[in-house]
Amino acid sequence: MVVDSETVSQALAGFVAASRWEDMPERVKHEAKRSLLNCFATAFAGCRDDAVEISLASFGSFGAAGQASLIGRSERVDPLTAAFLNAAAANVHDFDDTHLRTVIHPAAPVAPALLALSEKRLVSGPALIQALALGIEVTCRIGNAISPGHYARGWHITSTCGVFGAALAAGKVLGLDARRLVWALGNASAQASGLVETLGFMAKSVGVGGAARGGLLAADLAARGHDGPAAPLEGTRGFLNVTGEAPALDEITEGLGTRWEVLSNIHKPYPCGIVLNAVIDACLELRGKGLAPIKAVDTITLHGHPLLRQRADRPDVATGRESQVSAQHAVAITLLRGKPGLAAFTDAAVNDPATLALRETVRLVDDPDGAVPGVRVVVALKDGSEHELIIDHARGTDERPLTDGELEEKFRALVAEKSPACGEADKLIDAIWNLDGREDASTLLHFARPTTP
Amino acid sequence: MVVDSETVSQALAGFVAASRWEDMPERVKHEAKRSLLNCFATAFAGCRDDAVEISLASFGSFGAAGQASLIGRSERVDPLTAAFLNAAAANVHDFDDTHLRTVIHPAAPVAPALLALSEKRLVSGPALIQALALGIEVTCRIGNAISPGHYARGWHITSTCGVFGAALAAGKVLGLDARRLVWALGNASAQASGLVETLGFMAKSVGVGGAARGGLLAADLAARGHDGPAAPLEGTRGFLNVTGEAPALDEITEGLGTRWEVLSNIHKPYPCGIVLNAVIDACLELRGKGLAPIKAVDTITLHGHPLLRQRADRPDVATGRESQVSAQHAVAITLLRGKPGLAAFTDAAVNDPATLALRETVRLVDDPDGAVPGVRVVVALKDGSEHELIIDHARGTDERPLTDGELEEKFRALVAEKSPACGEADKLIDAIWNLDGREDASTLLHFARPTTP
Repeated sequence: MVVDSETVSQALAGFVAASRWEDMPERVKHEAKRSLLNCFATAFAGCRDDAVEISLASFGSFGAAGQASLIGRSERVDPLTAAFLNAAAANVHDFDDTHLRTVIHPAAPVAPALLALSEKRLVSGPALIQALALGIEVTCRIGNAISPGHYARGWHITSTCGVFGAALAAGKVLGLDARRLVWALGNASAQASGLVETLGFMAKSVGVGGAARGGLLAADLAARGHDGPAAPLEGTRGFLNVTGEAPALDEITEGLGTRWEVLSNIHKPYPCGIVLNAVIDACLELRGKGLAPIKAVDTITLHGHPLLRQRADRPDVATGRESQVSAQHAVAITLLRGKPGLAAFTDAAVNDPATLALRETVRLVDDPDGAVPGVRVVVALKDGSEHELIIDHARGTDERPLTDGELEEKFRALVAEKSPACGEADKLIDAIWNLDGREDASTLLHFARPTTP
Repeated sequence: MVVDSETVSQALAGFVAASRWEDMPERVKHEAKRSLLNCFATAFAGCRDDAVEISLASFGSFGAAGQASLIGRSERVDPLTAAFLNAAAANVHDFDDTHLRTVIHPAAPVAPALLALSEKRLVSGPALIQALALGIEVTCRIGNAISPGHYARGWHITSTCGVFGAALAAGKVLGLDARRLVWALGNASAQASGLVETLGFMAKSVGVGGAARGGLLAADLAARGHDGPAAPLEGTRGFLNVTGEAPALDEITEGLGTRWEVLSNIHKPYPCGIVLNAVIDACLELRGKGLAPIKAVDTITLHGHPLLRQRADRPDVATGRESQVSAQHAVAITLLRGKPGLAAFTDAAVNDPATLALRETVRLVDDPDGAVPGVRVVVALKDGSEHELIIDHARGTDERPLTDGELEEKFRALVAEKSPACGEADKLIDAIWNLDGREDASTLLHFARPTTP
């Protein structure tokens, strides 16, 4: 793909410019749809989060107005603001798609930029799917080139790399040639921002929302001739060298069109740290079989890879946010209430006396032979009996991705929990699976609005 | 000023929150006004630059609308967009104020954010001057803490640090307490961006415009409770550590309220690299005295500190932009046309046969004893005679700042050259000098509009 005389930025832009819907593998298209479905699901879940409410009020005070839609809400704003707010909503719980190698949540910056664009000009269903797959590809490849150092240094990689993916995705829809797509990268590079220090605070959403908005703006500017440097990514003072150490440029250019990063994108079944997936899977199974009757439990021991203990042995968490990485809380809340949704990781759930009591019974033991994504749970009852359950591959990992059905279930549960007024949300599921045949992708947003006040 | 228990971010926010107009030294207030005057001047000069035209068209296509003013233009937009476009216009020629130690242009991100805010809510003249001085202070102190490494690595420091200054300046006007000002810093930190790689391209303006807009947004969000981390600046994954190496935190906290960075802010007399100021001063004097008659010149030799040669010995420049750091071009255009304005550094000026011929006569010689801001110019005429002229301190340096009169002259020249339709611009000069007595700072913008179509 890479010709010697091309810069990395030019090669990436050239790939996007030349990409054809007919050449895109079916699996790639399908995974892009899954990311889109999950993005809608988590936006329905996050659309009334305080960070989104406050941002909307602020933009409103500055006069934001227009016809662009907000997922799960009836207000309308301009497309740039819609891209910002939908991205913030989709990512606010970190429950959106995850590219495990980089920990990027790629759909949040990219999909909302495209949805907003689809309300500004006609974007077909295939064009949206294709651009989303390309935007995810661009975001994750740039992330690969500077991982793990970039995130470790303190860059919130979803935002910093997402703005480039959003820019090239929007640029593809706008029909830009490779030269203008490089300008779009340049305009995006001037906006690449986001710090890990902001995680756990509303400020995080300014970065993620800004990436979607900034990418859309970057592409529109480029379409109008707003130029940028020849090598915004790999230039001496370009994004990769400034925010990374010894960037691996091959990661960006090798295998373009044959290796697809969206195929390594996973979807979380539970709104907590991925390391807890297996623990929750095991507890659900124990609960289903009646093997861990709460009142009869003496101790619950989790035998897992040392990483599980290092990351999640947190018996004394006090807030919803902390509980997202506590194995003790995950065990207690799952055995008590079944499949954990967003309500399972709130301050209220953490401080519920029943949860507090049960989590006291949980301990973690290292099993050096344990698989990272697995766990062996031993439940000792007060009568002296023991039950054991082994999970080798948790739901929502590379080895055992959520099925389409499980993804639909997640979607429905989040809509029911957080956006119950959106009476047509269910129609989005079929609409997304059948997006290839849709002439106007913006109709997706019609189903994303509240139908009752 | 710093109490042990405070973080650096808290100390800076606390200083801004506690600052009182009565305690601000007169010199600081006056220098803030000078920066404001210069900012208007360069915005009049840049308001029809391609980068601004294209950005305005793009924002317009996204539905930007409102009552906020654009300097030098009749269009109205929303305040966030106005902050963006006025900042881009003010900085596009790099002819705005310069904090020499950091090479920050501090007024461009800060003043437009405040001007836009003054059209959203009543801001008094004193409140605007005070907030501008504080915003410049914050911007430059943060820059000091990470200079020179930050810029050297590739960060466009005007943008990256300016967003914090704009945020605290706007936050001061909004009356935020220290806790909310720290949130404003956090919301700003998620938007801190801008790369040196983009300099020389329109993409630069996306960074500078974004800093003004982002700072204004960050403050408004904080006012509404949009929270952020406790230490957005000095946290382990905060701005200073992520974008700097071993940041000097003292630079931010020491001497707050006693040492003022705006006093080290200079204003360029000529729209080119500061290193050429002395060369142009000398040529103006030679020209005035008739000591360098063009047709009789054999050679012109510049004896200067080696830095002059290293930075500006560029005999073969071909574009207006390159000519801004060419000593050969500066000599030729000044001797030929007199005091150089923006038209002196255009493609047309560079490729004018008369300029091309004269610049051939110019050479640079190192004088290790030469002062950095000075130069000795020796003109050898074809008849064998020689004339010498020595400049120790150039106009527009710390030692010889532009007088208020020279600043007014620069203002008038830029309005005449680039915004001649703004018939009331001249009234801005008095209005700014007398801003202390003005109840509504937004009236400044009334004088900044075109009065003829």
